Amino acid sequence: MTDFTKTKALFQIPEGMIYLNGNSLGPMPKSAPDRILDFMHNEWATDLIKGWNTKGWFMQTNTLGDRIGALVGAEEDSIVVGDTLSIKIFQAVAACLALRPDRKVILSDNGNFPTDLYMVEGLLKLKEAGYDLRTPNPDDVMEQITDEVACVMLTEVDYRTGRKHDMKAIIDKAHAHGALVVWDLAHSAGAIPVDLSGCDTDFAAGCTYKFLNGGPGAPAFIYVAPRLIADVEPALSGWYGHAAPFDFDLNYRPMPNKIDRMRIGTPSIASFAILEAAMDAWDGVDMQALRARSIELMTLFVGEVEARCPGLTLAGPRDMNARGSHVSFRFEHGYPCMQALIAKKVIGDFRAPDIMRFGITPLFLDEDDIRGAVDILSDILKNETWKEERFQTRSAVT
Amino acid sequence: MTDFTKTKALFQIPEGMIYLNGNSLGPMPKSAPDRILDFMHNEWATDLIKGWNTKGWFMQTNTLGDRIGALVGAEEDSIVVGDTLSIKIFQAVAACLALRPDRKVILSDNGNFPTDLYMVEGLLKLKEAGYDLRTPNPDDVMEQITDEVACVMLTEVDYRTGRKHDMKAIIDKAHAHGALVVWDLAHSAGAIPVDLSGCDTDFAAGCTYKFLNGGPGAPAFIYVAPRLIADVEPALSGWYGHAAPFDFDLNYRPMPNKIDRMRIGTPSIASFAILEAAMDAWDGVDMQALRARSIELMTLFVGEVEARCPGLTLAGPRDMNARGSHVSFRFEHGYPCMQALIAKKVIGDFRAPDIMRFGITPLFLDEDDIRGAVDILSDILKNETWKEERFQTRSAVT
Repeated sequence: MTDFTKTKALFQIPEGMIYLNGNSLGPMPKSAPDRILDFMHNEWATDLIKGWNTKGWFMQTNTLGDRIGALVGAEEDSIVVGDTLSIKIFQAVAACLALRPDRKVILSDNGNFPTDLYMVEGLLKLKEAGYDLRTPNPDDVMEQITDEVACVMLTEVDYRTGRKHDMKAIIDKAHAHGALVVWDLAHSAGAIPVDLSGCDTDFAAGCTYKFLNGGPGAPAFIYVAPRLIADVEPALSGWYGHAAPFDFDLNYRPMPNKIDRMRIGTPSIASFAILEAAMDAWDGVDMQALRARSIELMTLFVGEVEARCPGLTLAGPRDMNARGSHVSFRFEHGYPCMQALIAKKVIGDFRAPDIMRFGITPLFLDEDDIRGAVDILSDILKNETWKEERFQTRSAVT
Repeated sequence: MTDFTKTKALFQIPEGMIYLNGNSLGPMPKSAPDRILDFMHNEWATDLIKGWNTKGWFMQTNTLGDRIGALVGAEEDSIVVGDTLSIKIFQAVAACLALRPDRKVILSDNGNFPTDLYMVEGLLKLKEAGYDLRTPNPDDVMEQITDEVACVMLTEVDYRTGRKHDMKAIIDKAHAHGALVVWDLAHSAGAIPVDLSGCDTDFAAGCTYKFLNGGPGAPAFIYVAPRLIADVEPALSGWYGHAAPFDFDLNYRPMPNKIDRMRIGTPSIASFAILEAAMDAWDGVDMQALRARSIELMTLFVGEVEARCPGLTLAGPRDMNARGSHVSFRFEHGYPCMQALIAKKVIGDFRAPDIMRFGITPLFLDEDDIRGAVDILSDILKNETWKEERFQTRSAVT
């Protein structure tokens, strides 16, 4: 049984802060500074170039991939870490189009995180004309899966509302129509149980700076089903994915039948060291227990807000089983209200036009945090603190 | 006047080691551990999500880009940092092809670092058929620049031999034929003076883990000429390059007329912190003085090896002005000989089939290092130490 009072002690949360933004950037694991210092002093400084062998740097893409894989139901050797989520999405969708050359439709939805759509836009400009990127409402995705579709590309959990797609149902329908599916797990990995293998997933990608707590801009990951990998032609074909990277052949040959072919260029080993410390916090965490705890805390939060915070309306489904692990409320004064909350050290974030977003991360949140946050929110609303001029100006980065 | 005894003191070199591999992975700047700890404790842990604003994380792509730009003769606001060199090369070549839609030839050479060729291979598979990637001998590049060529893509300094292309002459001829040029500065940035602006460069990309000492897998950078940037359509169109990334539009609009459009996904801020420390070591370093010192040390090294190490033959030009800042020798027993050297704490590396490679990095090397390395090399050759069985087996990563 996972003890969430123990996991809370693993993270550095500033004194007096209630951090409800672990869905955007996770807090620092207390062990991370020692781990990165160990890398600096006892790996880079001492081993220098030899570190690629002696310290296992070269294969950390895979060893870290397997640790993430354990949280998302992936087979061993089916995930590598590196690059950014945008790049990993590009790789996955490019692979789908190459595997379905006669189909010209990419089906996404208008709740997808925009960068996924942008990356596909860029990809389609590179390809010959005639492709069609469709972005219906999330609820209409199922009915738009047809024999025309090469690739369904979706983010499982909506970054704004928290609404969760039914992964298995979508994959089943897509496969019945001969389409492939790419899942963006940005708001899933470390947030909810994911069963990539059990759902017969084709491709998935995610980031490690949100629920996995790898630090700002921590590396992304990509999953390719073992049954597909031998046929995947990497579009971003870098030396790190070559069959024999140190032969320095002039022609690309992907690493045979291995996820390694999805590696591209030389990855940041410092960011891997920090991610290792972050993954240590997941040792022994049962994802079903995490989910139960997340639902418990989300239910408490929604109940308290609805009882004490007039004007705020729940966004996304009321059924907690149909959500990821963040809760959002629509409020017309959402932006200044969130600024007022942040000034009181309750950290959530705002997504245009009117969404106040709160990450519910059981690894380091408990009932006291939830109730404490609603106390402050309720107080801000009661006193209309959000009307203060200092909360009205928008900063460039929100 | 740059004082290279002072810069040497800025780097952590293990006791008794002579490190001639700064062209592959630079040593750790002594200030880097404190800088990364400061990031961990006083940025990530304290500011959490707010750090994107309060600590300037969001624009470190550009502030670091400008610091690198100062070493390679770039205009302000013409370089951003992030991703890997493979990705940055892909972006640059894709941009060239979009700017020259009627031309179907990419001209490189067979001395280019293979990943650059691999990335173009992948790009051409995505594009409609009909493209031709040509890889003549380096000496034949000039004569193959014709009106058919969309893009000349070259690494300025050959990663094996150290031979340097004439950047200005190639750009001039390419421009006369209406072609664009992409330079890979992997073995140039921090190694030799580069005058991107003065040479009328179109695109360039480089890495920061070699001569710039940013650590294993440190971020790459890309340069786009200010006169071109408004017309560059990013093929890897991520949210970090969007005109208004926090508007979360469903459609991509590149940051208008700014190098920021070459940013893709969320970059590793930890790796930026380390790179900042590495760039501090370059403050006040005059690149002409560095070049003079590099030539002095390379001349000494070649002279000593040729006088005392029979069997080794200089690879690449004898004229030091026609080289980058590493020196290579061909030797049929190069692999075991390099292993024997490494066992004696003289660190160079080996590139198949027979090249022993030595980085000459004035920031942290002096005459004593050079002579000391040749003493040990000469001893190994004299005693045929390299014949020992332990030096014969090749490791996976060389």
